[in-house]
Amino acid sequence: MRSLLLNERFVFGLIGLNALILFTLGFPQISPELRNALLWLDDLITICFIAEAGLKIRRDSIRGYLGDAWNRFDFLIVILSLPSLVDVFVPSDLNQYSVFILLRMARAMKLIRTLRFLPDIDRTLEGIARAVRASFLIVITFLLGLFIAAVVSQRLFADADPAHYGDPILALYSTFKIFTVEGWFEIPDQLVENLPPLAAFFARGYFISLLMVGGIFGLSLVNSIFVDAMVADNNDELEAKIDALTEEIRALQCALARTIGESNEGESQLRGEDVGGSIGEAAGDRSG
Amino acid sequence: MRSLLLNERFVFGLIGLNALILFTLGFPQISPELRNALLWLDDLITICFIAEAGLKIRRDSIRGYLGDAWNRFDFLIVILSLPSLVDVFVPSDLNQYSVFILLRMARAMKLIRTLRFLPDIDRTLEGIARAVRASFLIVITFLLGLFIAAVVSQRLFADADPAHYGDPILALYSTFKIFTVEGWFEIPDQLVENLPPLAAFFARGYFISLLMVGGIFGLSLVNSIFVDAMVADNNDELEAKIDALTEEIRALQCALARTIGESNEGESQLRGEDVGGSIGEAAGDRSG
Amino acid sequence: MRSLLLNERFVFGLIGLNALILFTLGFPQISPELRNALLWLDDLITICFIAEAGLKIRRDSIRGYLGDAWNRFDFLIVILSLPSLVDVFVPSDLNQYSVFILLRMARAMKLIRTLRFLPDIDRTLEGIARAVRASFLIVITFLLGLFIAAVVSQRLFADADPAHYGDPILALYSTFKIFTVEGWFEIPDQLVENLPPLAAFFARGYFISLLMVGGIFGLSLVNSIFVDAMVADNNDELEAKIDALTEEIRALQCALARTIGESNEGESQLRGEDVGGSIGEAAGDRSG
Amino acid sequence: MRSLLLNERFVFGLIGLNALILFTLGFPQISPELRNALLWLDDLITICFIAEAGLKIRRDSIRGYLGDAWNRFDFLIVILSLPSLVDVFVPSDLNQYSVFILLRMARAMKLIRTLRFLPDIDRTLEGIARAVRASFLIVITFLLGLFIAAVVSQRLFADADPAHYGDPILALYSTFKIFTVEGWFEIPDQLVENLPPLAAFFARGYFISLLMVGGIFGLSLVNSIFVDAMVADNNDELEAKIDALTEEIRALQCALARTIGESNEGESQLRGEDVGGSIGEAAGDRSG
Repeated sequence: MRSLLLNERFVFGLIGLNALILFTLGFPQISPELRNALLWLDDLITICFIAEAGLKIRRDSIRGYLGDAWNRFDFLIVILSLPSLVDVFVPSDLNQYSVFILLRMARAMKLIRTLRFLPDIDRTLEGIARAVRASFLIVITFLLGLFIAAVVSQRLFADADPAHYGDPILALYSTFKIFTVEGWFEIPDQLVENLPPLAAFFARGYFISLLMVGGIFGLSLVNSIFVDAMVADNNDELEAKIDALTEEIRALQCALARTIGESNEGESQLRGEDVGGSIGEAAGDRSG
Repeated sequence: MRSLLLNERFVFGLIGLNALILFTLGFPQISPELRNALLWLDDLITICFIAEAGLKIRRDSIRGYLGDAWNRFDFLIVILSLPSLVDVFVPSDLNQYSVFILLRMARAMKLIRTLRFLPDIDRTLEGIARAVRASFLIVITFLLGLFIAAVVSQRLFADADPAHYGDPILALYSTFKIFTVEGWFEIPDQLVENLPPLAAFFARGYFISLLMVGGIFGLSLVNSIFVDAMVADNNDELEAKIDALTEEIRALQCALARTIGESNEGESQLRGEDVGGSIGEAAGDRSG
Repeated sequence: MRSLLLNERFVFGLIGLNALILFTLGFPQISPELRNALLWLDDLITICFIAEAGLKIRRDSIRGYLGDAWNRFDFLIVILSLPSLVDVFVPSDLNQYSVFILLRMARAMKLIRTLRFLPDIDRTLEGIARAVRASFLIVITFLLGLFIAAVVSQRLFADADPAHYGDPILALYSTFKIFTVEGWFEIPDQLVENLPPLAAFFARGYFISLLMVGGIFGLSLVNSIFVDAMVADNNDELEAKIDALTEEIRALQCALARTIGESNEGESQLRGEDVGGSIGEAAGDRSG
Repeated sequence: MRSLLLNERFVFGLIGLNALILFTLGFPQISPELRNALLWLDDLITICFIAEAGLKIRRDSIRGYLGDAWNRFDFLIVILSLPSLVDVFVPSDLNQYSVFILLRMARAMKLIRTLRFLPDIDRTLEGIARAVRASFLIVITFLLGLFIAAVVSQRLFADADPAHYGDPILALYSTFKIFTVEGWFEIPDQLVENLPPLAAFFARGYFISLLMVGGIFGLSLVNSIFVDAMVADNNDELEAKIDALTEEIRALQCALARTIGESNEGESQLRGEDVGGSIGEAAGDRSG
């Protein structure tokens, strides 16, 4: 049993089974007996995961275990899924309450462990992290622009279109909608119905500029940052190659400088001094 | 007839005619007589394709014929379109049944042969294959994220919005919808109508983060992978050029090393030894 | 008058005025008198353009005039806008007929002349042409895929959803809609209402794969081709720099080869021969 | 107080407080007393900003203050927000009038000052400026194409669909809608209902080509320009590296040329002349 829980393939299989159980539990058509059996099975898997973490801690010591980032991630998830064990003892008619929603969520948390078993996941995550880091400032600028645009829009259209701009939170949501380009014209089209022609003209102009700046430019920038991060990776190889080339040229320069020294030496030798072992050495260097 | 069927242009013409027939057959306004004539004509083309494959096999032997990837592709398609020959003998009032839908599909299969006649198709397919291979992990991560998001969303909103999250398959479909950005706000807008204000606020936040992570970032990543694959191609040329440059610099180093050897030799010759033919040789090397 | 028509700025002003006239003519609120005045003014501009072309032909000879691509473009547009001169003599109640729609179009054609006056238009057009050339095969593959997908979809869904797949032209249009991602789920959502659950499941899967292949991959590819063409331009500079570098290294090799020759010479000179003027020459080469 | 207003962190805090006030003022549920208090507080912040500008001008002299681009930006915003000070004395039932809308806007203007406090904002703005400069011509071409397409569309469809093409401004708006791809098919779908089948077919073809040219190609181009600007940045590093490499190779050439000179010198020295200090110098150069 112990060796089974320390076997990566077995754990991967358990997570797969877990995914299947959670997927099946989602169907409202399943009988209460099957539902209960599945819930017990899911709890069994949670207990297995606790046992797995315990065994690993005993094997590697607590410090060794938590030294690995993926182990910390697993441990957090197991802790967060613990409350779901109580779920079975709760009568199902209480299920609507938000606490039980959270319990159900805790059950689904375990699925995130699958990420660990993706091939090459470390490199993918690193790529994502680099891209996110690269686009961080753009995202902050985007969010700040969103906030300013929302406050300005709310001041302008609170009276003309309370359904979209009635309070600042609605205004933020509506502005975000326009920034995703998706259905951008639905808001101005409804809004201009309550406005006189000239105001309608300016309102449309306002929304078109919002769309251009926020949607097209903003998303293009995010996109180009991504591409930038991806292409930078490509160029890194090129840069490494050029650096290697520079190294070789420097080696060439050194060799040349030494040759001149030698040939001066050689010339002085011609003028009567002794030939040392240094020439052979230097020649050896150069052919290496 | 034999040479006709082995002629690429004639076969291309047949596929074009086939496309026209299938297109015309689609119109419900055509008379039953024309429909029957077209079906017979289409069957004749299928028979021509069988004959073509047979002739090619006899010419190149079965091994030679199946050695070419495009031939294997053609052969598979001809096999899959065979059942459509039975179609004509089936009374048209049975057409609704799924078997006959499949027969009709088999007829349309033959169109895919056109791909072979696209100019430069091999290079295009290779480019697509490289891009797909490069984005494979991203796609797996995307699908896993989709699955986890669907299971979590279904647990959260099964009661509030059974039309979109009633069972796990619906939840997968709705989550995919949000991940394509297309009409992303329609689901939360319907959903929040059944929720108290605070829950509505958090639900909106949940959908916005789902959209940001799944839609914008996910699609951006897929896109950047594509661009990456395309640009890598570009950089390959640059890398080849830099490699060539490195080669030349190494040659220069060798030439220099040899020169020094020679000049040492020359110097020793000055000190009384013989001049060999090797200097002329080395000079010849260098100018080549 | 002649020098006025050969003045680029005056012609640009005429086109701007023309744009203003056409824009104003579009408003249904303008009085018949103003409309007539504007139509006459527009015809006057057309006549000016004819005169301009005539004067240029007389100045440069017909061969010289048509030798410039922009002149050919202007000439074609002036010819195409000639029929609009008849427009004024036609009673306005005949305006609905398609011939008069074409006459009105001819009037708007002249606006395209503005393109010529865009700064740097030649470079922009060249960039667009290069991108279009680069993506030509992708576009052909895309269109062929669209055709095959439309024929297959029409065979599958002609009975279930005649509004979208009733005939092949409708099917092409619906498939194109899905390929643009825009509102992609509206078609399957309507379609599955007439299908049994299992067929609905497969139909949704079919549309999702169509969307993935056609929409996301297709558009990504077109996009990456564009970026490719743009970035290729960038790399061209890099490639030129590396080529220049290679040239310099080759020069270095030559210089080295010559030096060795010289130093052999020099050494032979040490053995008693004459120093020629060639060394000074070679040294001059190297410092140049 | 003076040192407080010249403290960047305090000013940043004031802008943050200002953002909070404006956000809270947006809620229609707040009591008139709170509203008034917040308005007074906001005016106080405006006065603080005026004092800040005044203090900075006294410290740096007017010329020194306006020499900094961000100071000019701040000064403009403070001037534009001055009218909001009058807002409090205006009875709230006049708030609908456009003058008071502008006053309310003036209040929100101050938020834009936050931009200054974004980390690395200067580099981000520079990147955006470079991208905008690079895509300027494309944008002009795009706008001109939009104008021509709108005028042509209005001539064609003014009678068939007055709701979208009734006057040139509506036509511009509808054409822009199609160019954003968003809901592109809604306009042709409504329009073809009033057209005979053949005209409907051509109208759909017209809208599809408009979408392809305007939407997909136009946006792709804008996007690729962005990516171009981003990638150019990347290549700049590579170019700098290659330039450095070229420099080193030139240094190598010089060193070589000098070596030959020296070795000629050395050889002449062998023939009896004096060894100067120049060899040691040159050797020092080469190793540096």
